Amino acid sequence: MTPLLGEFIGTALLVLLGNGVVASVILARSKALGGGWLLITVGWAMAVFIAVFCAAPYNSGAHLNPAVTVALAMTGRFPWAEVLPYIGVQTVGAAFGALLVWAAYYKQFGETKDAGTKLAAFSTGPAVRNLPANIISEAVASFVLVFGILQLASASIGLGALDALPVALLVMGIGASLGGATGFAINPARDLGPRILHALLPIQGKQGSNWSYAWVPVVGPFVGGALAALLYQAHI
Amino acid sequence: MTPLLGEFIGTALLVLLGNGVVASVILARSKALGGGWLLITVGWAMAVFIAVFCAAPYNSGAHLNPAVTVALAMTGRFPWAEVLPYIGVQTVGAAFGALLVWAAYYKQFGETKDAGTKLAAFSTGPAVRNLPANIISEAVASFVLVFGILQLASASIGLGALDALPVALLVMGIGASLGGATGFAINPARDLGPRILHALLPIQGKQGSNWSYAWVPVVGPFVGGALAALLYQAHI
Amino acid sequence: MTPLLGEFIGTALLVLLGNGVVASVILARSKALGGGWLLITVGWAMAVFIAVFCAAPYNSGAHLNPAVTVALAMTGRFPWAEVLPYIGVQTVGAAFGALLVWAAYYKQFGETKDAGTKLAAFSTGPAVRNLPANIISEAVASFVLVFGILQLASASIGLGALDALPVALLVMGIGASLGGATGFAINPARDLGPRILHALLPIQGKQGSNWSYAWVPVVGPFVGGALAALLYQAHI
Amino acid sequence: MTPLLGEFIGTALLVLLGNGVVASVILARSKALGGGWLLITVGWAMAVFIAVFCAAPYNSGAHLNPAVTVALAMTGRFPWAEVLPYIGVQTVGAAFGALLVWAAYYKQFGETKDAGTKLAAFSTGPAVRNLPANIISEAVASFVLVFGILQLASASIGLGALDALPVALLVMGIGASLGGATGFAINPARDLGPRILHALLPIQGKQGSNWSYAWVPVVGPFVGGALAALLYQAHI
Repeated sequence: MTPLLGEFIGTALLVLLGNGVVASVILARSKALGGGWLLITVGWAMAVFIAVFCAAPYNSGAHLNPAVTVALAMTGRFPWAEVLPYIGVQTVGAAFGALLVWAAYYKQFGETKDAGTKLAAFSTGPAVRNLPANIISEAVASFVLVFGILQLASASIGLGALDALPVALLVMGIGASLGGATGFAINPARDLGPRILHALLPIQGKQGSNWSYAWVPVVGPFVGGALAALLYQAHI
Repeated sequence: MTPLLGEFIGTALLVLLGNGVVASVILARSKALGGGWLLITVGWAMAVFIAVFCAAPYNSGAHLNPAVTVALAMTGRFPWAEVLPYIGVQTVGAAFGALLVWAAYYKQFGETKDAGTKLAAFSTGPAVRNLPANIISEAVASFVLVFGILQLASASIGLGALDALPVALLVMGIGASLGGATGFAINPARDLGPRILHALLPIQGKQGSNWSYAWVPVVGPFVGGALAALLYQAHI
Repeated sequence: MTPLLGEFIGTALLVLLGNGVVASVILARSKALGGGWLLITVGWAMAVFIAVFCAAPYNSGAHLNPAVTVALAMTGRFPWAEVLPYIGVQTVGAAFGALLVWAAYYKQFGETKDAGTKLAAFSTGPAVRNLPANIISEAVASFVLVFGILQLASASIGLGALDALPVALLVMGIGASLGGATGFAINPARDLGPRILHALLPIQGKQGSNWSYAWVPVVGPFVGGALAALLYQAHI
Repeated sequence: MTPLLGEFIGTALLVLLGNGVVASVILARSKALGGGWLLITVGWAMAVFIAVFCAAPYNSGAHLNPAVTVALAMTGRFPWAEVLPYIGVQTVGAAFGALLVWAAYYKQFGETKDAGTKLAAFSTGPAVRNLPANIISEAVASFVLVFGILQLASASIGLGALDALPVALLVMGIGASLGGATGFAINPARDLGPRILHALLPIQGKQGSNWSYAWVPVVGPFVGGALAALLYQAHI
C-alpha cells in the first residue's frame, strides 16, 4: 500500500503544481497572467522537485509517470506485475491534483471566457495540430525524459529524494527546449487524468475535452520512453 | 533567547527580501518595475534561502512562519509552550523587515501614486475578492508548504542550514503555481506584521490597510498547515 | 568505443536541447515564441546539465566541445591522439541533435517565413556583423568557458556527473552576460555540425547557410580556449 | 602573490560577467536587449558563482569586494595588513573586467546613442537621485550581503569553492529584492574600478562619469558591511 500511496501523493502534487502554473499564467485575473513560457517551465520543474521528494519516502521510486514505470519494467528494475496498479494510481492522483487546481483558481476559471484556455489548464494541446508531427514531438521529448531518468535514478526501483533536483532540472530543460510544439505532456497520466476530470467537472462555460487528440500525449510518451529503455539496455 | 533571536533575524530577512522584491517590481521608478511574476517568485525563493541559512545557526529550526510552528507542534517535534513566543517574535520580525523595505525604497514609495500599490508592498490581497475562495487558495498553498517542510526538515525542531535550498525551491514552486489567486501569503506573520506596520507608519498618500481581508492570510495558512500535519501524522 | 559513444550521445543531447530552446523561442507558432533571452540561456544551461550527466557514465570526460578537448590536451590531461576522433564525433553528434530539433519542430519550421530565423535555429550569427569584433566576442566567452571548466573539472580527462550542474551554471552565466553580441557559439562542433546539416536538409524556404561567417564560431572558441589553457598552465 | 592573483582573476571575472549582463540587456543591437531585471540578477548571480569558484583555488578567500575584506578583518578572520593590497587588486581587477566587457560588446557600445546607457554598463546610478536615500539603499543591501557571507563562509579567511553557489544565490536575492533603487553596487571595487576606466577609455560619444555620485556606492557598502560585522560579532 505504501508505495502506491507515494505515487498518489506524488502525482497529485505534480499536477497540482504543474497544472497550477499553467492556470496561473493563462487564466483571467490571475496575478501571474502573461508570465510566459519560462515561468511555466520553472513551475513544472519545481512541481517535479516537490513531487519527487514528497513521494520518495514512500519507497515507490517516485515514477509519477506511466512512461517511466513501463521503461523501468523494460529494463528489469521494476516488476511488471506492479505496472498496472502504478498506472492506475498515477492517473487518479493526476486527476485529484487537477481538482485542487480547480479549487485554488475557482474564481479565475469563472472569469476566463475562452473554453480552450480552461481546457489548457487541465490537459495539453498542440500549437499546430498535425498528429504525426505531434506524436514525434512528444516522443522526442519523452525519450530525453526517460533516458535522463535511467541515467540518474539512484534508487533500485526508480528515483530517490536526492534525485529530486536533477530530475526537476531535466524537466525544466525539456519544457524550455522541446515543449513549444505540443506543451510537453511527456506523461500519459498527467494528461489523461485531468482530461477525464475536465469532462466530468461542472466547469462553467467549458466545451469539449478534445478527445480526438487525447491519445497523442498517451502514445507519444510511451513510444519515446520505450525507445529510451531500448537504447539504454543496448549498451549499458 | 538564541532561538528567538534566530526567528527574529530570519523573519526580518525573509520579509525584507520577500516584500523587497514585490516593492522592486511594482513601485514607480524602481529599476525592476514590471519585472513580472517570475521575478517575484524567484525573489521570494531567495528570501527563504537567505533567511533559513541565516536563522539556522541559532538553532531555532528556522520556522519563520506561525503555520509551520503550529504544525511542528502538532506533530510533536516542537514544544507547545514555545509556540506563542515564536509567533510573537515572527510577527515583530516581519514588521521590522517591512520597515527596512520602506527605508530601502523610500523614494519609490514617494513616487508611487496608487495607495493600493503601496499596500501591496506590505501585505497580500486577492486578485478576485471572494473570501471563501481566497481561504481555499491560501489553504491549498499552505498545505503544500507545510507538507513539504515536514517531509524535508532535517533538524529535530525544524529546518537546518542544509534545508535552505530545498525549502526555497518549495516556495518558488508554490509562488509560481499557486500564488496567482491571492499572492501566496502562506504565512500569518509575513502578512499581519507588515499590515500592522502599514497602519502605523506615516506613509505619504496611503489609504486603508484592508483589515476586512486581513484574517484570510492568517486563517488560511493555519488551516492548510494543520491539514498537512494531520495527513503527515496519519501515515508516517 | 564507449567514450566516443558518450561524446556522440552527449553532443547530440546538447544540441537537441540547446538548439531546441532557440527553435522554441524564435519559430512561428511555437508556444514559447518570444520567450526571451533568459529562456534561451536557461535552456542552454539545462542542455549542458543533461548532456554532461548523460555523457559522463561513458567515461569520455563529457567534453562535448572541440575547444574543450584541445584545451585539455594542451594541459596534458587528455591524449592528443584522441583529439581528432573526439572532434569528429562531436561534430556528427551536434548535426544529429539538430536533425532531431528539425523533427520535433517540423511544423514550426514550416510556419516560419523568414529564412534567417530558420538558420538561427541551427547555427549562430552576429547581432552586428564585424568579423574582428565577432571573433573577440567569441574568444572572450570561450576563454571564460574553458578557464572555468579547467578549474572545476573533477575527472582526470574532463567532466564527471557531479560537474554537470556547475558547468551548466557556467554556461548560463556566459550566455546571459557574453552572448548578446554573437549568440555564444563557444563550441565549434555546436555551430559547424548543424550548419552542415542546414546546408544538406531539404528545409522549405531556406536560403544560404552563411558560410562566410562560419569560420568565426570555429576559430573564436579555439583561440579563447587555448588562451585559457595557457593562462591556467602558467600558474597552477 | 597567489591570493592576490586569485582576487585579481576573481574580480575581473565578476565584473566581466556582471557588467557583461548589464551591457547585454541595455546596449543597442545586443541579442539580449530588453531582457529585463531578472536576466540582470541571474547574470550577476552566475558572475559571482563563476568568480568565486575560479578564485577559491588561489586561497584568497574569494572576497572580490572591499566591503567583504574589511568586514572579515573586523571579525578577526582576515589580517588588517592585507586589507589595502586586497582592495587595490580588487579595484584593478574590476577595471580589467570592465575593459573586457568593452571589447566583447565593442560594436554594441558604438551602436548605443545614449551616453548614460554607456556609463550604466560600467557603473551604477540611482533610479531616483537622493544621496541620503541612495546611501541607505546601498547600506541595507550590503548589510544583507556581508551578514550572509559571514554566516555561510566556510574557509578560515572567507569563501571556498563550495560556497560559490550559496553566495551566488545570496546575490541573486539581493539584486532581485534590493536592487531596484540604486542598481545594487554593494561592492566599492565593482563600481569605482569600472568608473575610473570609463573616465580613461576613448569610448565614442561618452559623457561624464557621474563623479558626484561615485562616493555613494563606495561608502554605502562599507557602512552596511561594517554594521553586519558588528551585529555578527555581538552575538555569535
